[in-house]
Amino acid sequence: MTEALTSPQNTSTQGPISTLLHENVYRIVMRRPERMNSLSREMMQALSTALDEAAADPEVRVILLGAEGKVFCAGHDLKELTAARASEDNGAAFFKETFDQCAALMQKIVTLPKPVIAVVTGVATAAGCQLVASCDLALATDTATFCTPGVNIGLFCSTPMVALSRNVSRKQAMEMLLTGESIDASTAKEFGLINRIIPKDYLEVVVQKYASTIAAKSAHTVKIGKEAFYHQLDMPLDEAYRYASQVMTENMLAQDAEEGINAFFQKRAPEWQNR
Amino acid sequence: MTEALTSPQNTSTQGPISTLLHENVYRIVMRRPERMNSLSREMMQALSTALDEAAADPEVRVILLGAEGKVFCAGHDLKELTAARASEDNGAAFFKETFDQCAALMQKIVTLPKPVIAVVTGVATAAGCQLVASCDLALATDTATFCTPGVNIGLFCSTPMVALSRNVSRKQAMEMLLTGESIDASTAKEFGLINRIIPKDYLEVVVQKYASTIAAKSAHTVKIGKEAFYHQLDMPLDEAYRYASQVMTENMLAQDAEEGINAFFQKRAPEWQNR
Amino acid sequence: MTEALTSPQNTSTQGPISTLLHENVYRIVMRRPERMNSLSREMMQALSTALDEAAADPEVRVILLGAEGKVFCAGHDLKELTAARASEDNGAAFFKETFDQCAALMQKIVTLPKPVIAVVTGVATAAGCQLVASCDLALATDTATFCTPGVNIGLFCSTPMVALSRNVSRKQAMEMLLTGESIDASTAKEFGLINRIIPKDYLEVVVQKYASTIAAKSAHTVKIGKEAFYHQLDMPLDEAYRYASQVMTENMLAQDAEEGINAFFQKRAPEWQNR
Repeated sequence: MTEALTSPQNTSTQGPISTLLHENVYRIVMRRPERMNSLSREMMQALSTALDEAAADPEVRVILLGAEGKVFCAGHDLKELTAARASEDNGAAFFKETFDQCAALMQKIVTLPKPVIAVVTGVATAAGCQLVASCDLALATDTATFCTPGVNIGLFCSTPMVALSRNVSRKQAMEMLLTGESIDASTAKEFGLINRIIPKDYLEVVVQKYASTIAAKSAHTVKIGKEAFYHQLDMPLDEAYRYASQVMTENMLAQDAEEGINAFFQKRAPEWQNR
Repeated sequence: MTEALTSPQNTSTQGPISTLLHENVYRIVMRRPERMNSLSREMMQALSTALDEAAADPEVRVILLGAEGKVFCAGHDLKELTAARASEDNGAAFFKETFDQCAALMQKIVTLPKPVIAVVTGVATAAGCQLVASCDLALATDTATFCTPGVNIGLFCSTPMVALSRNVSRKQAMEMLLTGESIDASTAKEFGLINRIIPKDYLEVVVQKYASTIAAKSAHTVKIGKEAFYHQLDMPLDEAYRYASQVMTENMLAQDAEEGINAFFQKRAPEWQNR
Repeated sequence: MTEALTSPQNTSTQGPISTLLHENVYRIVMRRPERMNSLSREMMQALSTALDEAAADPEVRVILLGAEGKVFCAGHDLKELTAARASEDNGAAFFKETFDQCAALMQKIVTLPKPVIAVVTGVATAAGCQLVASCDLALATDTATFCTPGVNIGLFCSTPMVALSRNVSRKQAMEMLLTGESIDASTAKEFGLINRIIPKDYLEVVVQKYASTIAAKSAHTVKIGKEAFYHQLDMPLDEAYRYASQVMTENMLAQDAEEGINAFFQKRAPEWQNR
């Protein structure tokens, strides 16, 4: 993110990340540029804890996930994984734990009752690309690039592709996975992996406006909607409709829908009450 | 649609809509511009009845769905929904009936044995956007816009997103649902929500040609194909192939396939017989 | 493909196709331009056999599928199908066998443990378009076009749409299926049906580089990855992650991952050992 976004002022440092809550927007910044913000066990634990805190804090309505340095996130920490080969089982248990922890982190983003927006200004590779794919939304500068290069080191990006292949088309995903080559921000937008490309000089102001636009909605409504979105995606059409109609009926009976619709008729801003 | 398309001449008015059958193309036009063509219970009933009639009439081969005025369709009728809050159950039963009716209408479009083409010249919001997403094909002018703004009034577009998320990518759908912001026709085409953007002055002639191109096909073949299309989408690959191979074999044994292939060899226009 | 790619020099002719293995890249070229490379029973059998040989030969790491002439592949052989109408069952058994054989061929491409890349320089229609959609990757020149015109002859492209609808969005697929109209290479790339458009004069050099980039990866890793890719696509998210984490753990324990990661740290090229 920009300097302003990553400024240590008012931020809380929690191991390899820092967090900052400002006007209902919770910023998580990965701060191990010298390690390319790789997803070490420590980094994944820190991200998971920060996301849990964001989920629990009623002041938090939107979460931004950014990184310091030229690399957004380089994926798994290969040194940490390699060190585990020295153990009796050649690392099998450690590898499984690591990949399970990573899969749990990615799914935590999806099941979190608040929107998580990736803000990518650098290189997002392997599980770093998966992190972007797993977020609900993604903003990027034109300095961002994306790739899943595991195939180059004999380790296919099999868990990253779970998220990637749910964001981009089959042939687009396959090209990234089989060639290991990078795509630029413009291609990532075309593929549907990111939402917007923002000029670097305008990043802070655009990210702020984008996040606050969503933060201004009813947190209760957003929670209902995000949960229902991912839930219905895996259903056949008729089942999805039965489920969504039920969700919508319950939503109509919530205070915030009544307030929101009344405010709309009275041409005034709504005052959300639901938590 | 254009004036020609919405001309009352020769049309039949059925409550809030009018219908017109001309050269195997059945035009349904929503005509409550002063109510922003919202999907009141009456409007949904009228659309449903018109679609049933179109399905039953062997003269109808293609259905166009357009609207009068600057708003294609503004989604549910919020006044009608709000009025139901006065009832003893705070509207619960009415809400459920309304959303179920809407879900049934959208699925009727999908299961109808004839292609339904949205013709969008104005604003399509919420369930209005869902209507476009539910059609088999969609044409638009550059004056068309699309959004799912329920989140702004505390009522997440949960049923619209069932159709939307089956048309556009996850992040694209999420941006529309969480920000409530509009996309223009050009973005909608890029996202895959609409097929073509037509200059307003050419709308009538292009829509006519597009619809008659499809109307010239064997109605029996189109029926088989449309049904199979949506049916196989929810299947895993091997099951989809087993099913589609069976469909294709039966199709080959139909009179229209024999006639169509013979006509192709004889370099003449086919004469379809199947109903 | 280009003349170089289709040069008979060093190639083996197997009925309607020729094959050539050069530097771990196996080229299959359909060579019945006078029959528009249609998928006759003989052609499908030849392709199936060649794919089996490519799968079994450890020297083969990447498969290219091209065609001689202006038509990449015109789909099923309508003359062959029509001739079967003379049999007692009006062709029913022959049709079923033919469509089953075709579905098996398409699924063989998907389940083959090596990447299959379509190289399209001409017209790909019906099951020919399905062939492109079924490949893992697709390269094309701007002379390539794609369509599913079965509807024009009364025979909906029901099996082609299984592959097509898993490559492009619903409305895009529906437009191709219902209008029977062609899309050009540029539109096909936009839709996600092909990966890259290559100027004709550069085709050979680009295809060669593209294929050898993938051929240079660990065959074992690519096999694991390709299989996992299609397998996880049909799973809900949590199941997909459980499965992919397991795959990734096993991949980490393979020799090629250890070698690949070590080579990465030592800044040298890896030497793959796994088969």
